[in-house]
Amino acid sequence: MKKLINDPRAVVNESVEGFGIAHADLVTVHPDPLFITRKDAPVQGKVGLVSGGGSGHEPLHAGFVGRGMLDAAVPGAVFTSPTPDQIIPATTAVNGGAGVLHIVKNYTGDVLNFETAAEMAEAEGVAVRSVLVNDDVAVEDSLYTAGRRGVGGTVFVERIAGAAAERGDDLDGVTAVAQRVVDSVRSMGVALAACTVPHAGVPSFDLAEDEIEIGIGIHGEPGRHRIAMEDADGITQRLLDPIVADLSLTSGDRTIVMVNGMGGTPASELYIMFRKVAQLLDGLSVTIERSLVGNYITALEMQGASLTILRVDQEMLELWDSPVHTAALRWGA
Amino acid sequence: MKKLINDPRAVVNESVEGFGIAHADLVTVHPDPLFITRKDAPVQGKVGLVSGGGSGHEPLHAGFVGRGMLDAAVPGAVFTSPTPDQIIPATTAVNGGAGVLHIVKNYTGDVLNFETAAEMAEAEGVAVRSVLVNDDVAVEDSLYTAGRRGVGGTVFVERIAGAAAERGDDLDGVTAVAQRVVDSVRSMGVALAACTVPHAGVPSFDLAEDEIEIGIGIHGEPGRHRIAMEDADGITQRLLDPIVADLSLTSGDRTIVMVNGMGGTPASELYIMFRKVAQLLDGLSVTIERSLVGNYITALEMQGASLTILRVDQEMLELWDSPVHTAALRWGA
Repeated sequence: MKKLINDPRAVVNESVEGFGIAHADLVTVHPDPLFITRKDAPVQGKVGLVSGGGSGHEPLHAGFVGRGMLDAAVPGAVFTSPTPDQIIPATTAVNGGAGVLHIVKNYTGDVLNFETAAEMAEAEGVAVRSVLVNDDVAVEDSLYTAGRRGVGGTVFVERIAGAAAERGDDLDGVTAVAQRVVDSVRSMGVALAACTVPHAGVPSFDLAEDEIEIGIGIHGEPGRHRIAMEDADGITQRLLDPIVADLSLTSGDRTIVMVNGMGGTPASELYIMFRKVAQLLDGLSVTIERSLVGNYITALEMQGASLTILRVDQEMLELWDSPVHTAALRWGA
Repeated sequence: MKKLINDPRAVVNESVEGFGIAHADLVTVHPDPLFITRKDAPVQGKVGLVSGGGSGHEPLHAGFVGRGMLDAAVPGAVFTSPTPDQIIPATTAVNGGAGVLHIVKNYTGDVLNFETAAEMAEAEGVAVRSVLVNDDVAVEDSLYTAGRRGVGGTVFVERIAGAAAERGDDLDGVTAVAQRVVDSVRSMGVALAACTVPHAGVPSFDLAEDEIEIGIGIHGEPGRHRIAMEDADGITQRLLDPIVADLSLTSGDRTIVMVNGMGGTPASELYIMFRKVAQLLDGLSVTIERSLVGNYITALEMQGASLTILRVDQEMLELWDSPVHTAALRWGA
């Protein structure tokens, strides 16, 4: 294992510390227990948004803390759920009196720990709602979940719910917008090669030289099937078809598309995939209104990619376009 | 070799085509000969900025086309200089009557082809100036250069000269600002593992399991020396020391720092390195005024990183902060 790290047990703390220095204009790092808030938190009268999960998926979630997106991010150890003792103070720290929404990716540990934290924060007088992101169409149940996994759709939920909070929607309103995004977004991924968790020191799974895994999870958990290596167009079609079917995308639908790198994939390859997605959706008379192509939710240095499609209406699109200023997503500000 | 590509010979064309679709609001792709211009080119009365080089370093250069940065990017084949027949039409296409600046990374092929193109464009009546970026302190001459290689400093030259052009500086003025950045910026890189050029199909060099290459070039060309794997703090110090020495950085100096991923390095590792850079510069009483941490100039999926430091004065900092709107760098717009 060769990594640009020091003590494997210090990876998350040192990385977040560096992140805090680089983005001191945007965020405050709270070291113990570890969580990150936007610089001006709590924003009085605004619904606070908190997300979190295992580390190793950067820029998710800390990279999305800032105006128009998250108020706090709670990083667990690598590929390990954050604990309630992190989530509780993050929740109270961003409560500006209008309550807090938890955006939770559907993994058993995350769900339990956010539930516990929500109860505790409620006991401290904070109104807490929660949405569960479960956009991965690859598998119905998985190694770490009952039901679908939460993956790339999380970026869309955080952005659009964050925009709704920023314009002043109340807690029920922000929760409803977030749920609407959850209901309209689907993803699927592929791995060409595994990643190595620092404290494990060995690759999290093995793929033969000519083998890829369709439907991979963001922790390297198994997908739908392993197949022989194919070209980018063929792989892209394999990711797109189940999403189109599950969303029942039809002529005239409007979408936002994300082609996401898993951490070890060159940008050029992601654009080759995006080209094919655009061709295929054009063939279905489905419009791509906006797009993201790059590393937004990764699995350390995994070689692979994921495709996420959100069906949008005019309101979601306007929320998407409103100003956002975070380390990893920024426009209009 | 597993890559998300189709025909290895089509990688650049298909990738740029996808890029053009994703960023149709920002750029126009001219397919034959291949170059990319900003959507509103030529901007009348503004100095045009053209850069280019071998592909495989994305987002450089196409990702930096747009307001406040480049007017055109000219991508060669992977790790191969673009040809004069691409550079000439890119140059004439962005001439708004105020002349064109070529920003050239110091590699023999790039230098020759940009020189030829400049002469031809001049013959067509376009005033052309040129700056040579040679910021890599690792080696004095190298596999592909006489003199130092041009690497991460290119991002700083493109941004700051682009800002000067946008505010209306004339050709001599923009050239002078660009040269001032070249004179004030230095870089050095490290590779943990090689990348594979698609049409070659095998890794461009070999590193043993416990070995890293200090001073690597962005095409995998040899650096200063190979050493046994070290921790991130030690490696960071090895990159920083020669830069500090070469720039004669001293107490009170102000800088912009970039910790850049080579394509296959997780963001978390880059932030761990940035943390150490911040500690070391703080120890020298050198200020980091702004920073970039992420993938800005890559070598396909190479695992590694580079450090770039620009010593800034107030004017350079103000130009840096002015609005920029490109695919890969965006603020204030």
